[in-house]
Amino acid sequence: MIKPHGSDTLNPLFVRDDAKRAALKKEAAGLPKLLMCSAGAANAVMLGSGYFNPLTGFMNKADALGCAKNLKTAAGVFFPVPVVNMAADVSAIKGAKRIALLDPNVEGNPVLAIQDVVAIEEFTADEMKLMTQKIFRTEDPEHPGVAAFNSVGKFCVSGPIQVLNFSYFAAEFPDTFRTAYQIRDEIAIRGWETVVAFQTRNPMHRAHEELCRMAKQDLKTDGILIHMLLGKLKKGDIPADVRDACIRKMVEAYFEPNTVMVTGYGFDMLYAGPREAVLHALFRQNCGCAYLIVGRDHAGVGSYYGPFDAQTIFNEEVPAGSLDIKIYEADHTAWSKKLNKVIMMKDAPDHTKDDWVMLSGTKVRAMLAAGEALPEEFSRPEVAAILMKYYQSQEG
Amino acid sequence: MIKPHGSDTLNPLFVRDDAKRAALKKEAAGLPKLLMCSAGAANAVMLGSGYFNPLTGFMNKADALGCAKNLKTAAGVFFPVPVVNMAADVSAIKGAKRIALLDPNVEGNPVLAIQDVVAIEEFTADEMKLMTQKIFRTEDPEHPGVAAFNSVGKFCVSGPIQVLNFSYFAAEFPDTFRTAYQIRDEIAIRGWETVVAFQTRNPMHRAHEELCRMAKQDLKTDGILIHMLLGKLKKGDIPADVRDACIRKMVEAYFEPNTVMVTGYGFDMLYAGPREAVLHALFRQNCGCAYLIVGRDHAGVGSYYGPFDAQTIFNEEVPAGSLDIKIYEADHTAWSKKLNKVIMMKDAPDHTKDDWVMLSGTKVRAMLAAGEALPEEFSRPEVAAILMKYYQSQEG
Repeated sequence: MIKPHGSDTLNPLFVRDDAKRAALKKEAAGLPKLLMCSAGAANAVMLGSGYFNPLTGFMNKADALGCAKNLKTAAGVFFPVPVVNMAADVSAIKGAKRIALLDPNVEGNPVLAIQDVVAIEEFTADEMKLMTQKIFRTEDPEHPGVAAFNSVGKFCVSGPIQVLNFSYFAAEFPDTFRTAYQIRDEIAIRGWETVVAFQTRNPMHRAHEELCRMAKQDLKTDGILIHMLLGKLKKGDIPADVRDACIRKMVEAYFEPNTVMVTGYGFDMLYAGPREAVLHALFRQNCGCAYLIVGRDHAGVGSYYGPFDAQTIFNEEVPAGSLDIKIYEADHTAWSKKLNKVIMMKDAPDHTKDDWVMLSGTKVRAMLAAGEALPEEFSRPEVAAILMKYYQSQEG
Repeated sequence: MIKPHGSDTLNPLFVRDDAKRAALKKEAAGLPKLLMCSAGAANAVMLGSGYFNPLTGFMNKADALGCAKNLKTAAGVFFPVPVVNMAADVSAIKGAKRIALLDPNVEGNPVLAIQDVVAIEEFTADEMKLMTQKIFRTEDPEHPGVAAFNSVGKFCVSGPIQVLNFSYFAAEFPDTFRTAYQIRDEIAIRGWETVVAFQTRNPMHRAHEELCRMAKQDLKTDGILIHMLLGKLKKGDIPADVRDACIRKMVEAYFEPNTVMVTGYGFDMLYAGPREAVLHALFRQNCGCAYLIVGRDHAGVGSYYGPFDAQTIFNEEVPAGSLDIKIYEADHTAWSKKLNKVIMMKDAPDHTKDDWVMLSGTKVRAMLAAGEALPEEFSRPEVAAILMKYYQSQEG
């Protein structure tokens, strides 16, 4: 199996020893408290899971600026985005050496982690602007990632953390949420050597199914990790339980037994396109995958990024040797009426628009809500049935 | 979470380090080889999984006799049955210090584990007889456990092992097979403290469903571990995939979200009744459960054991302090027509046979094969539907 990023063994920051975890929970009650922003809490869950190996906690200003500018911390650790604990108001933890971090996403704001505070620093407006530009390639406040990044304050609370739970992810998605160390364990137990990861936050139609199959065949991997984002969704997105049911049904009906693991991770989308693709690769390496499928406009939003920027960044911005994981460069895939199968669009330069079976998301939703069957070339009937049931229940 | 049996942390014998495991696989190719018996291979899988903590390998003669007679190894480790690597013919490993153990249950007999041979000893006929009597409380060769125990030779190959895979269990039951260390991880990740385990090798009807619910309520646990045996089945038993589908459907439809984990372990039934109940408790402690439900004739077969022998053994043969796990003593449960709910039969001494909704296994099979619905008091309709489909497919 591929080694984690930056160390020989994975060092998740969740406190796995029960007695130690219980003691820390008690200690937390007496510590100064900071209510985290949602992005900070998501970072803590990723650090706890081992996905952000080898980081030991939240970055300071120099690390964050280094990662934004050169994809490197001050100590030279490759990391494509800052992993920070940002706050607008730090008066409650002034002078504190050790604090309890409260979870903004769970009722009652329980303690999510304990942090040793190494520094509390403030970013200047220029620094925020610079980071925004570097990470998102735009400063447009309409960009959802830019808006989120600039809405959480300018104070950066840095230092190592000990994570005490996995926020709402473990309880809400018990069958799907998995830490990086669980996935590594499971890969070893299944006796797999090489695995290709597929990132998703949507149900999977035939185009995605075949893309996974193509990648597995081309790369000759033992397995496919379908790895879904379980963070909060935009309005109109398919709820995670419906998406999960669609994906599991597809895997059960159309993949060879014991070739796919259906799992999820607890993080919010950054919509940072190219930079996020690199982050996606990094944390797939940490969960034991040798390859990540990166398609057209991976992790993008609107028209901020070129269709293949999330692929070219691996040659243009990622120094050779920074990551061991390789990407599998994909284009959109779709059913070709000429060839009667799903192929990658870039492999058929002779095709015109009418040669493909393609449906917009809007069209798909309208058809399903109206009880119209989707073409089998577009969606497996079992998957379409689950989605139809969902959309029809929404109509009532 | 409850501590493992015999040590502060769990020490599974599966080699979790990839590089080390790969090196051992290479080494195994050049080692003298022993084709294991099925029971020995099942022991290796349980040792690899951490279920048989704190054992470090296969017992020698003194340990095996000690466990049979007094439930203790020579060094004083509590263990209710011998965990041995028995062979009829040891000529191929004569004089060897280190051997490769071949898996009898996977095509091509791949290497399952590497063993450092400390001793090769032979049991006398009297010793085999004594062990049989102590473990099974009978020497009747018609008893399936007794027959299996006495069919695998009299040579005992003892010494520590390093386990390299999980036989056919991981590949055949990827969604259900779980090691003890995986279950401990999952309990911690879910934030559960106390868990009650339910042992099964059958689909679960309403009686079992309600029994789990009663135990959880009475014991105030955070969760229920449904833990199914995935070893080889007797003719006429429900195949594991059908059983698994029934159980998952029941959990999904009738239990609160995030209160049940559906998992399995790789072992063959011993049918050793009381002694096996103690083993069942021991390995549930190792996977983090504070309680095990022990019902009427637990792990029994035919009429070799009294209906509650598997409960009384915990007072009669298990010295106080040997295990931390406690048992939840259950009787049969069934739907009471008088009370209109499932209750434990011992709690209704006023009930006569006609007051219960009960069906024999034979009757259930006949009804399902004929397409007759089972009473809802007996079986959830979703579960009955899956079983009906299975039995009707068998008829064709």
